[in-house]
Amino acid sequence: MEKYVEFRVRYKETDQMGVVYYSNYFVWFEVARTEYFRQLGYSYKQLEEEGIILPAVEAHCEYKASAYYDDELVVKIWIDDLTGTKITFRYEVYRKYEKKLLAKGYTIHAFLDANKRPVSLKKVRPQIWQTLYQNIQ
Amino acid sequence: MEKYVEFRVRYKETDQMGVVYYSNYFVWFEVARTEYFRQLGYSYKQLEEEGIILPAVEAHCEYKASAYYDDELVVKIWIDDLTGTKITFRYEVYRKYEKKLLAKGYTIHAFLDANKRPVSLKKVRPQIWQTLYQNIQ
Amino acid sequence: MEKYVEFRVRYKETDQMGVVYYSNYFVWFEVARTEYFRQLGYSYKQLEEEGIILPAVEAHCEYKASAYYDDELVVKIWIDDLTGTKITFRYEVYRKYEKKLLAKGYTIHAFLDANKRPVSLKKVRPQIWQTLYQNIQ
Amino acid sequence: MEKYVEFRVRYKETDQMGVVYYSNYFVWFEVARTEYFRQLGYSYKQLEEEGIILPAVEAHCEYKASAYYDDELVVKIWIDDLTGTKITFRYEVYRKYEKKLLAKGYTIHAFLDANKRPVSLKKVRPQIWQTLYQNIQ
Repeated sequence: MEKYVEFRVRYKETDQMGVVYYSNYFVWFEVARTEYFRQLGYSYKQLEEEGIILPAVEAHCEYKASAYYDDELVVKIWIDDLTGTKITFRYEVYRKYEKKLLAKGYTIHAFLDANKRPVSLKKVRPQIWQTLYQNIQ
Repeated sequence: MEKYVEFRVRYKETDQMGVVYYSNYFVWFEVARTEYFRQLGYSYKQLEEEGIILPAVEAHCEYKASAYYDDELVVKIWIDDLTGTKITFRYEVYRKYEKKLLAKGYTIHAFLDANKRPVSLKKVRPQIWQTLYQNIQ
Repeated sequence: MEKYVEFRVRYKETDQMGVVYYSNYFVWFEVARTEYFRQLGYSYKQLEEEGIILPAVEAHCEYKASAYYDDELVVKIWIDDLTGTKITFRYEVYRKYEKKLLAKGYTIHAFLDANKRPVSLKKVRPQIWQTLYQNIQ
Repeated sequence: MEKYVEFRVRYKETDQMGVVYYSNYFVWFEVARTEYFRQLGYSYKQLEEEGIILPAVEAHCEYKASAYYDDELVVKIWIDDLTGTKITFRYEVYRKYEKKLLAKGYTIHAFLDANKRPVSLKKVRPQIWQTLYQNIQ
C-alpha cells in the first residue's frame, strides 16, 4: 500500500538555476523510506541497530518539472518488488497545492548484515519481511 | 572520447553506514560534467551565463561497491548520445589505486534557454554541438 | 519572541562517526529562519522575490551533544539584534523527548537588494522591519 | 605553519542566490583539515581507524565576499591553539586568481576515543601531538 510523506523544500536544496538540485530527490526518497517503515510500525533506525542495513544497489529518477524553495511537497512511496534479499521502492514527488507530478523514480536495496554480507530478510526477520510483502503494490 | 576526473571522498559525503551516501554519486557526476566541458575547451559556467542551461531530465546509478572517506576516486565520463535538444552522459566511478569499479550510471540533460524553454543546441550553438557530437562514444 | 520548529534528522545528515555532520546545523538554522518568517505572517520566499535577500555575514555554532539519525529535534529561534541593515538570529537545538540541548549558535544577516547592495530594511520595508523589531528578545 | 588546499566550487554548492550556500564553507574547512594532516605526514582517516576522533565543539565563519560556481578557491589553514584535549584550526578562503579573501573562520575540535570519551592526544599519541604542537602558528 502506498504511503505519503510531506515536507518543504529547504533553501540549501536549491542551486543557481533557481530550482532544486537534482541529487536532492534521492535524499527525499530516503526520507520517505524512513517514514514508510515508521508507518508500517517498524523503525528503520532500530532495524539498523539490530544489524540489518539496506544500502542502495540502484537508484533512478525522472525529472518532469522543477521544485522550488519553500514548496510543500508530497512524496508517494510504495513497494514495487520484494525478494528474500532485495526490495524495490517506487516514488512520486508532487507539489502539494496543485498535485503536480515533479519527479518519479525507484531505488533497489539489498539486505545486508552488520558485516555487510547479503542476508535473507525473509529468514532473519520473517515478521518484518511478511509485513513488507503484504504491502507490495 | 572519454575523459577522466579525479578527487577525494569528503568526510561530509559519508553516512553512519561508514560509506559514501548514495546521492553523492550524482554530485560527482556533475563535477565530472563540468570538467568534461573544460577539457573540451568550453566552460559550462560560461555556457550557462550565455543563457543555455542543462537541467537533468533523468538520472541513474548502479552501486557495485562502497566508496570510503578519503578514497581517491576516478570518474570516467563520456557522451553516449546527443540529439539537437538532449545529451546523455555515462559515468563510471573507480577507486584509483585498485581500479575497482564502484558505480556506473548515466544522466540525460535537456538544453534549455534562459526562459527554461527547450532549445536546439545544434541551432543556437552549432560549434559546441559539433564538438560534443564528435566526442560521442 | 522565540519560535519553535520541529523536524527529524535525515540519514543523509549523518557521517561515519555515526552522528550528524557539523555543517548541517547551519542548514537547520536556515530551516528555522524560514519558519520564523512564516510564523510572523511573512514569507521569506516572497521577500526574496520582491528583491530583498539576507545572506549570512557571520555564522557560529557550539556543539554540546550529538544528534543522531531519526532524532526528533526542536530548534528554538529568536531575534537577538536588529538594526536598519542587519539582523541577528539565535538558535538552540534540542532533542525533543529529553529536552536535551545539543547545540546553540547565531547567524548575522545583511539586508541586500536585488543588485546585492546593502539596503535599510527599515526604510524599504518599514512594516516587516517593525514586526521584526517588536520580536527582539 | 600554514598550509594551502585548492579545489573548485561545485554546482551543488550554489543556491538560488547564485552564490555558494553558507554551510558549505564548513565542509571546505573539513577538506582542508584532512589535507593538513596529510601534509604533516599523517592520515586523519587512519587516526580515526585507530580510535581517535575529532568532532567539532565549536565552528565559526565570517563571510566577506561571495564564492561562485566553478571558482578556483584556496583555503589557507593553520593551527591556532593546541592543548592536550583540544585543537583550534583557523581558515581563510580565497578566490585564487585575484587572491580575494572570501571568508575566514575557525573550528575547535575535542580529541575523543572510540567510546567518545575525552582523551589526551598528548598522552595517547605523543608523536602526532608534538608534530601538531610544532606547527602552531
